[in-house]
Amino acid sequence: MILEKVNSPEDLKKLSTEELKQLAEEVRKFIVEVVEKTGGHLASSLGVVELTIALLKVFSPPRDEIVWDVGHQSYPYKILTDRKEKFHTLRQFGGISGFPSIKESIYDAFGTGHSSTSISAALGLKVAKRLRGEEGHVIAVIGDGALTAGEAYEGLNNAGQLKEDLIVILNDNEMSISKNIGAISNYLTKVATGENLRKAKERLEEVTKRIFGERVYKTLKRVEDLIVKGLFPPGMLFEELGFRYVGPIDGHDIETLTVTLKNVSRMKGPTLVHVITKKGKGYTPAEEKPEKFHGVSPKISKPVENLPPSYTEVFSKTLIEIARENENVVAITAAMPSGTGLDKFKEVFSDRYFDVGIAEQHAVTFAAGMAKKGLKPVVAIYSTFLQRAYDQIVHDVALQELPVVFAVDRAGLVGEDGATHHGAFDLSYLRHIPNMVIAAPKDEEELRHLLYTAVKSDKPFAVRYPRGRGYGVRIREPLKEIPIGSWEVLKEGKDLVILAIGWTVYQAFEAAKKLEKEGVNVCVVNARFIKPLDEKLLEELSKKFSTFLTVEENVVKGGFGSAVDEFFADREEIKIFNLGIPDRFIEHGNQNLLRKLVGIDSEGIYRKVKEVVSVVKS
Amino acid sequence: MILEKVNSPEDLKKLSTEELKQLAEEVRKFIVEVVEKTGGHLASSLGVVELTIALLKVFSPPRDEIVWDVGHQSYPYKILTDRKEKFHTLRQFGGISGFPSIKESIYDAFGTGHSSTSISAALGLKVAKRLRGEEGHVIAVIGDGALTAGEAYEGLNNAGQLKEDLIVILNDNEMSISKNIGAISNYLTKVATGENLRKAKERLEEVTKRIFGERVYKTLKRVEDLIVKGLFPPGMLFEELGFRYVGPIDGHDIETLTVTLKNVSRMKGPTLVHVITKKGKGYTPAEEKPEKFHGVSPKISKPVENLPPSYTEVFSKTLIEIARENENVVAITAAMPSGTGLDKFKEVFSDRYFDVGIAEQHAVTFAAGMAKKGLKPVVAIYSTFLQRAYDQIVHDVALQELPVVFAVDRAGLVGEDGATHHGAFDLSYLRHIPNMVIAAPKDEEELRHLLYTAVKSDKPFAVRYPRGRGYGVRIREPLKEIPIGSWEVLKEGKDLVILAIGWTVYQAFEAAKKLEKEGVNVCVVNARFIKPLDEKLLEELSKKFSTFLTVEENVVKGGFGSAVDEFFADREEIKIFNLGIPDRFIEHGNQNLLRKLVGIDSEGIYRKVKEVVSVVKS
Repeated sequence: MILEKVNSPEDLKKLSTEELKQLAEEVRKFIVEVVEKTGGHLASSLGVVELTIALLKVFSPPRDEIVWDVGHQSYPYKILTDRKEKFHTLRQFGGISGFPSIKESIYDAFGTGHSSTSISAALGLKVAKRLRGEEGHVIAVIGDGALTAGEAYEGLNNAGQLKEDLIVILNDNEMSISKNIGAISNYLTKVATGENLRKAKERLEEVTKRIFGERVYKTLKRVEDLIVKGLFPPGMLFEELGFRYVGPIDGHDIETLTVTLKNVSRMKGPTLVHVITKKGKGYTPAEEKPEKFHGVSPKISKPVENLPPSYTEVFSKTLIEIARENENVVAITAAMPSGTGLDKFKEVFSDRYFDVGIAEQHAVTFAAGMAKKGLKPVVAIYSTFLQRAYDQIVHDVALQELPVVFAVDRAGLVGEDGATHHGAFDLSYLRHIPNMVIAAPKDEEELRHLLYTAVKSDKPFAVRYPRGRGYGVRIREPLKEIPIGSWEVLKEGKDLVILAIGWTVYQAFEAAKKLEKEGVNVCVVNARFIKPLDEKLLEELSKKFSTFLTVEENVVKGGFGSAVDEFFADREEIKIFNLGIPDRFIEHGNQNLLRKLVGIDSEGIYRKVKEVVSVVKS
Repeated sequence: MILEKVNSPEDLKKLSTEELKQLAEEVRKFIVEVVEKTGGHLASSLGVVELTIALLKVFSPPRDEIVWDVGHQSYPYKILTDRKEKFHTLRQFGGISGFPSIKESIYDAFGTGHSSTSISAALGLKVAKRLRGEEGHVIAVIGDGALTAGEAYEGLNNAGQLKEDLIVILNDNEMSISKNIGAISNYLTKVATGENLRKAKERLEEVTKRIFGERVYKTLKRVEDLIVKGLFPPGMLFEELGFRYVGPIDGHDIETLTVTLKNVSRMKGPTLVHVITKKGKGYTPAEEKPEKFHGVSPKISKPVENLPPSYTEVFSKTLIEIARENENVVAITAAMPSGTGLDKFKEVFSDRYFDVGIAEQHAVTFAAGMAKKGLKPVVAIYSTFLQRAYDQIVHDVALQELPVVFAVDRAGLVGEDGATHHGAFDLSYLRHIPNMVIAAPKDEEELRHLLYTAVKSDKPFAVRYPRGRGYGVRIREPLKEIPIGSWEVLKEGKDLVILAIGWTVYQAFEAAKKLEKEGVNVCVVNARFIKPLDEKLLEELSKKFSTFLTVEENVVKGGFGSAVDEFFADREEIKIFNLGIPDRFIEHGNQNLLRKLVGIDSEGIYRKVKEVVSVVKS
C-alpha cells in the first residue's frame, strides 16, 4: 500500500509516475469503501483522482492554493493532504465536512459548497498574494456544469482583464449533476471532440473553393491540418476572454497532467487548462450511471419497502397531476431534474419542461417572463440555491406581482451536506418581500393542496418543504384549494398555544400529547401560511391565551416566529417564545440528529414548553 | 413639428426616412428639455433615439415585445409609444417612472431597473408566446456594460441552447455608467473597431508564411480581406454561444438600422445585432462627459455652496484616510466608481482599487478571497444592488467569518429612481445571516467612526447609509472605534423610548423636542447597531420603560424593529411599536416626500408617538 505511506503532499512528491498511478487506484478504492458507508458525492470525486495527484505533484499547498469549485470533488484532496485518518468520519456529525472548509484544514484555501465561486475566490486570493508580496500559485478547479452559472463568467471576465497569473482548470466531465445544459456546454463538447476544428476545416474549404477554385483548394488540402490549427486555437472562446487556453488533455493520464501543469506553472497571465475526465472513473456502477452516483446514500441493509414517499416525490407527482388539468403550467429547474423530481415531469411534458443549467438567477427571471404572458411557471429550486436569485425574486416576480410558484425543496436542515446546504434562511429572505405568499405544509398530503393552491392563485407564491420522507399520511383526493392565510387548529388546549410550521407541526402535536399526560394542556396550531399570517385566528387566540410558542425549521431571526413577534409586539400580556434554528451556521450530520440538536423535534418542543410553563408560572 | 403628430407607433410607421430623422432630432430636444427640469438618465436615452425609432418602424408593440435592459434608456420609447403627454411628470411623485413598468403601459413588456435581466425575461416571453400560440417578436435591448453581469450570460447561454427566435440588440456605447470593464468589453471593442479582423489577418499571414512561404503569401495577400471575412465572422464569440451575429452597425443611422432590423425580423433562431451608439448623442455636454450626464439632477437655480457633504463623499474621504494608515485596505466597486465615491480612492491608491464591472456576485466572493489572505476589502455597493450578492454574503463571507466590510450606500428610500432602486430591504436580508455585524450612522460624522470600526474589526461588517447629504454636523478628528453593539442615549425621558437608526435618529430627536413642549417626555436612543443589539441597554431601559417605538428607514418586516420585537417577545408589560417602511413597494418621487409619506420623518414620528401615547393611556 502506497497510500499508507503518503501522509502529506511532501510524501506524494517523492513518488514515481508508476507509484502515483498505483496511488490513484488505492485512493479510488479507499473513497468507494468509505462513501459506501458514509454516503457522499462519489462520482465527482472518483473523476478527479489523477488530477488531484498531479496537482499535488506539481504544486505545494498551502503555499500554492487550490480552490475546488462546489467542492464535492475534494475527497481525494482531503485524503492526500491531511485528512486520511479522519476520512471515515466524512459527513458524520463531528466528522470532516463533505466540502472544503477553511476551518477544517490549512490545505483548504477557500470554502465552497454552492457552484461557480472558485474563479472569483481564486482571483481574490491571487491579488491579495501579489499585494502582500506572498509567493505561490492560485488554482481554481471548476467543472463544466459550474461554468453555466453567471458568477463563473463574472470571474472569468474580471480575471481576463486583470491579467493576474491565475490558473483555472476546467474539469470537463461532460455532465455536471445531470446531463449538461446550455450553449457553453455544447461549445466545450465541440472543443473536446475536435468538432470545432472540423467545422473550421469545412469553413476553410468553402472559402478557398469560393475564392481560388478547386485547384488551390487541393494544394491547401495537403496541409489543411496545419493551417487550421494555426488559425483556430481550439479554445478560442476563452482566448477571446483574455485567457491562454491549454488543452484539451486527458484527465486520467497522470504523466500528461503532470507535464502540462508543470508547463502551465511557468506561464504568465490567466491560463485555462481544459481537462477531460470521466465521472465515477474506475467504479463501474458509477461510470455507467454517474447521475445516480452523484450523491450516494449509505448502503442500507434493511429492506426499504413501504416507507412513506419523499416530499420531492409527492411534489413531482402532484405537479404532473396539476399540469394535466392546466396546460399553462410549465416547470423550471436549475440543473437539478432528479433532485427536484422534475425528471418525471419532463417524461410527461417535455415541451413544458425547462432545465436552464446552474443558473438560478436566470431561472427566476425566465419564469417571470413566462408568467407575464399567462403561463403558470413552477420553479423548483432548493432553499439554499434559491439564495442566488433573491434579487430576481424581489424585482422580476414580486415587484411586478407575477404569479410564479416557487417550489422550495430542502427547506430546513438537510443533514450531511451541512452548513452550505441547509435551507435555514428562506423564510427570512422571502418574508420581507412585499406581495409574496409563503406556505409550508405539515405533511406530504398538505404539500399537494398547497401546491395546487399556489398554482390556482394569481400571486408570487413560495411553498417550502423539507428534505426526506413525509409522515406517511394517507394521500386524499381530489386536490383542493386552501384559503390563503388560513391556519388550522389541530388540538385545542388552555395553557398555551404552539404555532408550528412545516415538519415541526407533528412534532409539536406529539409533544402536546405527552404534555397532556402531565397536566399541561397545549393548543396546537398548524400555521401553514407564514405570509400572510392568519390574523383573525391570532386575534381569537389572543383572547384566550397569553402565552405563545412558535416553532419552525428556519432561523428565528426574521423568520416565522419573528412575524408573530411583530404581530403581537404592541400587545401587553402576550408573551411569545420562539423556537427555531439559532443564529449560527449549523454543522453537518444526520438530519434528525441536527433537528434534535437545535431542539425543534418533539423532545425539544416538550422541553421548551416545560421551560416556558415554569417561566410563566414563576 | 413631427413629434406633435406622432401619438402612437402606428403614426410613426407612416413617416419617411427623412421625417424619421427629423423626428429623432425633435425627440432628442424634447428629452433634454424635460430632463433638465425633472432630472433623469439623459445620456443613455439620447444614445438610443434612432434605435428606438427604427425598432418602432420595423416592429409593432405590444404585439412585438421589447425588453429594455436596466431601462433608463427607455425615454424615447415612452415618448413614442403612449407617454408623450405625461413625459413632463417623469420621475415625479405620481408621474411616470424612469424605468419601464408593466403597470404603467401595455407597451412596456417587462419591468426593469437592475441590470442584465433582459435576455432572460425576453426568452421567457418568447417561450410563452410559442407555447400559447401567440404571434410576435421578442427583442431584448442590452448595453455592453450589462453584458458583464452573470445573469446576462446565463440568459445568452440558455437562449443559445433553446434556439427560440429571440432578437438581442447589443447596444454598444463603449461605456456603461463609467468606462467599461472586463474581458467581454475588450472583446466588443475589438469587434467594433475591426481589430479582431486585423488580428485574424496577422494570424493568416503568419500561418501562410510559415507553411507556404513568402510567394504564396503574396498571392493570398490580394484577396486577404475576402478570406479573413469568410473565415472569421466578426462576432464569433456569440456564434460559439449559439447566436447568429449581425453587425456591427451604426446605431445612429436610421436607414441602416431599419433595413437590418427588417432582415433580422425574418431570421430564425437567436440573433444578436451589434449596434454602435454614442451616449449623449446630439447633446454636446452629454457627449463630451457622458458619465456626468448618466443621471442628471434637475437644474438648480439657487447657489449650492455650503451644503453639507453627501454620505458618499464622507465615506470616500474617510476610506482614503483609513487606507493611508492601513496598507491592507482595498476597495471594490461593481461598476459604480463615482456613485460610490471610490473614484477618489482610485486616484490615490490605484493598485488597491478594483472595479469589477456590473458583477456584484463576483465582487463579494472576490473580496472574500482577498480577506482570506489578510487584506481588508471594503466593498461599496448600493443597498438595492447588493441584493444580487445575498448568497455570496452568506456563504463566502459570513459562513467563513471573513472580515469583508460592506459599505452599503443608498440604504433607505432613494427618491426618484423609485421601487427598483430603494434600499428598503438590506437590514432584513442581512440581519438573519449569522456572524454579521450591521450598523447605521445617525449622521455623516458617525459614518466615519463606524467605517473605521468596521475596518478595525475582524468581522463581516455592513455599514448602511442613505442617499443624499448629511446633517451638516462638525466632522471631529481623529477616527475612533465605537464598541460593537453599543447604542447611545441622546435624550433622557420618562414616558417612552424611541429606538431610532440611521437618518431617522435626528428626526426622532426633533420630534421628541416638540413633544416635550407638549408634556410628553420621550427618551431617544441612537440604536446604531442593528446587529448585535445593545442588549445591556435594552435590559436597563426595560426596567424604566414599558413602551418602545422603533424607527427605521427599512421595511419593518425582518428589519431593526423586528429585532427588538424578537428581543422582547417573551416579556410581559413591554409594548413595542414599529415604524418603518410598510410591506409594499414604494413608488418614485422626491426622497423627503417619500419619507414623509411612509411617516418616518420628524412629523411622522411625532404623530406616531401621539398615537402610541393615546393607545397606551386608553
